[in-house]
Amino acid sequence: MLRDIQDCFISEKEVEHIHAMSLRVLSEIGVAFEHEEVLEVFRKNGARVDGDKVFLSEAMVNDALKTVPRNFEVYGRNGSVFIGPDREDPFPVMANSAGLVTYIETDDTVHKANVYDAIKYHKLTQTSEVLQMSKASSIDYPGLGNDKENKILKQYAIQLKYSDKPIASALRTNPHNVGTGRIKDGVLASYDLVKRYYDIWDKYVVLEVVCPLSPLSNNYECLENVLGAAAGNQPITICTCSMTNVTSPPTLLGTIIQDNASILAMTVLIQLLNPGNPIIYNSLSAPSDMRSVQLSIGASESFLLSMATLGMARFYNMPARTIGAYSDAIDVDYQAGAESMLTGMAPILGRSDQLTHAIGTMGSFNYGSFEKFVLDEEVLLYLKRVQQGINFSEGRECFDLMKEVGPRGSYIQRRTPKAYREEHYLSKLFHRKGSGITMREQVGTLRSRAAAEVERRLEEYKLPETTKAQDAILNEVLVNLDYDI
Amino acid sequence: MLRDIQDCFISEKEVEHIHAMSLRVLSEIGVAFEHEEVLEVFRKNGARVDGDKVFLSEAMVNDALKTVPRNFEVYGRNGSVFIGPDREDPFPVMANSAGLVTYIETDDTVHKANVYDAIKYHKLTQTSEVLQMSKASSIDYPGLGNDKENKILKQYAIQLKYSDKPIASALRTNPHNVGTGRIKDGVLASYDLVKRYYDIWDKYVVLEVVCPLSPLSNNYECLENVLGAAAGNQPITICTCSMTNVTSPPTLLGTIIQDNASILAMTVLIQLLNPGNPIIYNSLSAPSDMRSVQLSIGASESFLLSMATLGMARFYNMPARTIGAYSDAIDVDYQAGAESMLTGMAPILGRSDQLTHAIGTMGSFNYGSFEKFVLDEEVLLYLKRVQQGINFSEGRECFDLMKEVGPRGSYIQRRTPKAYREEHYLSKLFHRKGSGITMREQVGTLRSRAAAEVERRLEEYKLPETTKAQDAILNEVLVNLDYDI
Repeated sequence: MLRDIQDCFISEKEVEHIHAMSLRVLSEIGVAFEHEEVLEVFRKNGARVDGDKVFLSEAMVNDALKTVPRNFEVYGRNGSVFIGPDREDPFPVMANSAGLVTYIETDDTVHKANVYDAIKYHKLTQTSEVLQMSKASSIDYPGLGNDKENKILKQYAIQLKYSDKPIASALRTNPHNVGTGRIKDGVLASYDLVKRYYDIWDKYVVLEVVCPLSPLSNNYECLENVLGAAAGNQPITICTCSMTNVTSPPTLLGTIIQDNASILAMTVLIQLLNPGNPIIYNSLSAPSDMRSVQLSIGASESFLLSMATLGMARFYNMPARTIGAYSDAIDVDYQAGAESMLTGMAPILGRSDQLTHAIGTMGSFNYGSFEKFVLDEEVLLYLKRVQQGINFSEGRECFDLMKEVGPRGSYIQRRTPKAYREEHYLSKLFHRKGSGITMREQVGTLRSRAAAEVERRLEEYKLPETTKAQDAILNEVLVNLDYDI
Repeated sequence: MLRDIQDCFISEKEVEHIHAMSLRVLSEIGVAFEHEEVLEVFRKNGARVDGDKVFLSEAMVNDALKTVPRNFEVYGRNGSVFIGPDREDPFPVMANSAGLVTYIETDDTVHKANVYDAIKYHKLTQTSEVLQMSKASSIDYPGLGNDKENKILKQYAIQLKYSDKPIASALRTNPHNVGTGRIKDGVLASYDLVKRYYDIWDKYVVLEVVCPLSPLSNNYECLENVLGAAAGNQPITICTCSMTNVTSPPTLLGTIIQDNASILAMTVLIQLLNPGNPIIYNSLSAPSDMRSVQLSIGASESFLLSMATLGMARFYNMPARTIGAYSDAIDVDYQAGAESMLTGMAPILGRSDQLTHAIGTMGSFNYGSFEKFVLDEEVLLYLKRVQQGINFSEGRECFDLMKEVGPRGSYIQRRTPKAYREEHYLSKLFHRKGSGITMREQVGTLRSRAAAEVERRLEEYKLPETTKAQDAILNEVLVNLDYDI
């Protein structure tokens, strides 16, 4: 690709205008931070604070932006991922979806999330050629023990057991899963578990995510997570998720400006707490469909909002995260395919640096599907090929071959050339065997092929090897569970 | 949109290189024209002819390009469509798919094309808000009478009866459907029928399409159609459809060069026959999947080839036609949605001027589906919204509203503003009602909603009004049919 797709949708002038308007929001409207310790940090550093509203100057924003690193590296048990615009491979570093409350089985029944769904997603992630990071697909499902225990720690332990890929966290620590202690300490306990398990002490080991609320506010729980991540010196994705006309203005531009102001305010806080702390710029904001007042993550406007996210992140010189293969469909159907391709195109052709919820999500973030997981992989591999573009290098003209074959000749008589194999992505699951009238009976449905692929992957899956010390660490945490894992 | 998506994939330098290489193909390799009358035209105008191979100089190509109009207008019974880069609306002028040999019914049975399928497509096209042109979806199905009759004429009559939208022809005249006369005369008889029916005599009334064969050749049948269209002074789409590594080189670049040479050679012929005859630059070339040696119209490489088609057409200052919502799927499934969105994105974000096969095609051009027809409309309307981009005009920042609502406020208490309605496309068929665990039972499947929409459209459909003279013209042609229409 010659240039990123967002160049088709947002100009430098427009990016600058959004920045200027965001500065006005920060100085004239302010952002709420519902946490006294945080307000004190702002006060100490010269911000005007009125109640829990913080007003920020351009100088404070500029100072913060100066210390945000352009790239960083997150370590797993067996390797690391490099995240940022200087990454050589333009295909984003991706993790599976998270926050799924319901799963659709192959037989089309639906059920509330449980530990086995989460484990199946870990196994599919571990065996995925498109995902380089692991993420907990559901959180706080039943059976994790009594309320006095730190249940987040157990969920980290499950993730560590089933995948050795670097962790993109979706395990938001909250008053209901942290046990008896403070949220911030629960966050730090999680990092400590991961570091002990890896025996890695001086690297980034958890890509954290925090979600400012829209409009322009941050609650106590979110800020405790921020304080934990900054104290633990782990990279933080700042993820806004506004709904147009509900929690953000009715226009896309207004939504972009409000989100950008939120992200900048959080950036200032993080850099004040821990200068140089890596940050990923991220908005998952999406349009509301006002007929049902539902978030429409697979919509056209979702794509457009991502174009702005990429434009702003590039302007600030920060790594970008955007939407992935999203859909509002509640079946593995035509809509799921169409919307996943549309929303997957934004980050791949926009060369986003990192994605979570990249695959396996539908129903406006609520539904998981094992078949959609592997079908979304296919969509991303299609898009990877599109991202590679046309090979214009010398020799690819095939002039001599064209002359040899000549008018009316055939190219097929010879061995399939290397150039063909290099330039063609041959799909794994999508049908390409032709269209005779009996073909449908011969090949079965796409859904059944996807289910077979899921089955194959789960059968081939092997638990990552562990040391005795690692087993001991997990066994210490994985107690009082209502199920065998 | 600020710029067209092909700018991300092909540069001016690369376009110039393709042009230069194509000139080498035309002068060194030549293009076969299997028609003595055509060869004589080339000879008379100074081209070197060797057997049936024609060699063209740069000067002859440049002369031809000078007389190709940048835009043109095709008339129907009740209005016209303007085609070309100067068209105000960036959404392409589109027609439905053609050449379908098999249809999938709502109950998932498949059958060979018949007249009623063709009529259903005409009715859906007539009631479509995204299609502005009408096209025969199948051709030469059984029951059109005996072989001595001009069956093409009957198919034109059916199209005229069921739709009043301007005609994008898919009715290729050939020795088996033209009756006893010459193909060229059969083509002219068709135009005469349309002109009489419209009572329009001095306008373009049929957007014709001709298909050079790959590699680099044109058979007698194709050239008879060209002679007919040029003699009848109707606009001609030059449509190559190569299969990589089968009928074109194994590389995309080689395929693009070979197709471009074919299109230029045909352009020269048409401009020699009828200087100023409108032409649309079009390639539907696609990758082959060498595992099955099948054309893969929904593939990533299909998208990339379209980027080059758009780049070349713009370079030559000719109207462009590209792929539409294509798929190799043989079910109305996730693959059908994903591939249709991918391939639909090329022309919409590349601002192609015209499309045929825009909607309702799958199974590598062979399968039709009434439900896919209306679902593809949804995909194109999604893409239309993406094409509109983000509205950056003054006031869309909603700064005052943001101030009024403030941190933690809500935007939902007021009436849904006009700006929201202007900036959001609310899908008609795709699910957006949320994701509760019982939602699937409440809303039914997407396929069933699409089937209901097809049913509704067919019920609401009304035959275009006719005069007695028009009825008489059709009655004269529509004889000896094996069915009631």
